[in-house]
Amino acid sequence: MSWVLIVDLLGTMVFAISGVVTAIDKKFDLVGALVIGFVTAIGGGTIRDILIGRLPVGWITDMKYFYAILIGYILAYCFTSRIIKLKKSMFLFDTIGIGLFTIIGINIGLTYNLDYPICLIMGVVSACFGGVIRDVLANEIPLIFRGQIYATACLIGGIFYMLLSKISVFENINILASICLVILIRYLSIRYNWTLNISRKI
Amino acid sequence: MSWVLIVDLLGTMVFAISGVVTAIDKKFDLVGALVIGFVTAIGGGTIRDILIGRLPVGWITDMKYFYAILIGYILAYCFTSRIIKLKKSMFLFDTIGIGLFTIIGINIGLTYNLDYPICLIMGVVSACFGGVIRDVLANEIPLIFRGQIYATACLIGGIFYMLLSKISVFENINILASICLVILIRYLSIRYNWTLNISRKI
Amino acid sequence: MSWVLIVDLLGTMVFAISGVVTAIDKKFDLVGALVIGFVTAIGGGTIRDILIGRLPVGWITDMKYFYAILIGYILAYCFTSRIIKLKKSMFLFDTIGIGLFTIIGINIGLTYNLDYPICLIMGVVSACFGGVIRDVLANEIPLIFRGQIYATACLIGGIFYMLLSKISVFENINILASICLVILIRYLSIRYNWTLNISRKI
Repeated sequence: MSWVLIVDLLGTMVFAISGVVTAIDKKFDLVGALVIGFVTAIGGGTIRDILIGRLPVGWITDMKYFYAILIGYILAYCFTSRIIKLKKSMFLFDTIGIGLFTIIGINIGLTYNLDYPICLIMGVVSACFGGVIRDVLANEIPLIFRGQIYATACLIGGIFYMLLSKISVFENINILASICLVILIRYLSIRYNWTLNISRKI
Repeated sequence: MSWVLIVDLLGTMVFAISGVVTAIDKKFDLVGALVIGFVTAIGGGTIRDILIGRLPVGWITDMKYFYAILIGYILAYCFTSRIIKLKKSMFLFDTIGIGLFTIIGINIGLTYNLDYPICLIMGVVSACFGGVIRDVLANEIPLIFRGQIYATACLIGGIFYMLLSKISVFENINILASICLVILIRYLSIRYNWTLNISRKI
Repeated sequence: MSWVLIVDLLGTMVFAISGVVTAIDKKFDLVGALVIGFVTAIGGGTIRDILIGRLPVGWITDMKYFYAILIGYILAYCFTSRIIKLKKSMFLFDTIGIGLFTIIGINIGLTYNLDYPICLIMGVVSACFGGVIRDVLANEIPLIFRGQIYATACLIGGIFYMLLSKISVFENINILASICLVILIRYLSIRYNWTLNISRKI
């Protein structure tokens, strides 16, 4: 099993945990939490695959993702309070996850010969739209639309990755460097409270 | 016309009625109610078909569902107050509907050689996600995520159906028995006020 | 470039502007506004294409739409207050847009040999569901479900278009006439405050 696959599955699991924790917070029942965990974990990749026409979507035929989500679901219920305390580790895994998902989405776009801006969109959709669906189902305005630098980190990390690919940096080093950039941007943005708000009066 | 098809169309109609009643309750206009009725009735099957790649989705090429929904729409407007009173019959048809939709979803999954857990997901998606979309469009937290045993009944009924299929029970008897189990679980859960909530402090 | 394509791109741009203005109004950040602008502009056509199985969806392989949306996004930020004042021009472009999108949706349905009512649904979905997704993401009840005659104008314009097609009116004249009818209905409905509400007590 390559390290990319391991990170992919870990990211999926962490996304599922974040969904389940949201669901517990909203007082959803066991099944509701399972659905939210699932949708958060595979939502982004699913929308990407549907848009491109890569059907059936990946997690339907590859059971590894199903089990990663199930483990995340069980962990989230067994260690709810500890997970809340482990915020830093969760943040790290989550950010590694969105970094990697961005790169996976971009690569799938490149495989389908899509233009660079569209590949970038596929990357951001893969990384961010699971969380968008999670928030819509929880009847909240999606987190990525306000406040934190989240989609933006994916965007910049994705552009960085495509530039390094152009100048033929080794793939593994490139992936690592791009994910580190995403983590750095997310970390700095939270530490220094960066936002992309332009206040306007309408 | 087989009895399965008749129940399928009746279920579709009842789902449409439940959507239209929600829409009337929310003071949507005639077109809004039509859209909600439609989406409630075909939403679950549509998502299932998209995920599997069974496109175009069924109701686009098979007009029977269109007419079932249209009849449900008209009935809901003509007999709004009586439908509210007929809650018990509505409950029965709705529950028969989700039972059958679960089984239809599972069978489509089996046809596509999907693993058993994924078939089960396809069944639950078919039965429950029309209602999820209805609630999202009405700007509410989806009903199936909290309170009532709804998706759970589909889940258990679906597992029961797959077990009986394994030991080669006659298909018709199996379908009937599984639907009855879904009805029984739903009935008992409402009567004895079962929930799947685990209270947690976060 | 035919005039139909020009109107199509203009309509896309105006839809993107309407999404971005909503996002600014809701205090979304720059990326959130870009996502909402995008989704509002291509959401309807995307859902139509997915339902029919026309994948990958159009805007993924045809960059014209991407650039139209980007221009709309930039315009919306540069001239936010002026756009609010230009309500009449915006209304005109928006209504021309939904008229044309309805006709484009119907024609795609006809190309796939779908029944007339389904073609009509494809038309209305193309024209209206971008706005529906915009409102869901902004955590509001979709505008088209209440109040204004919006989807209804598309519905009537679409039926008119299909009737004129039957009696072989020149395509260009037919498109123009149908769009004018949509504009007329929208204009009259706003001026005389038409609604399709049926008040009911439940």
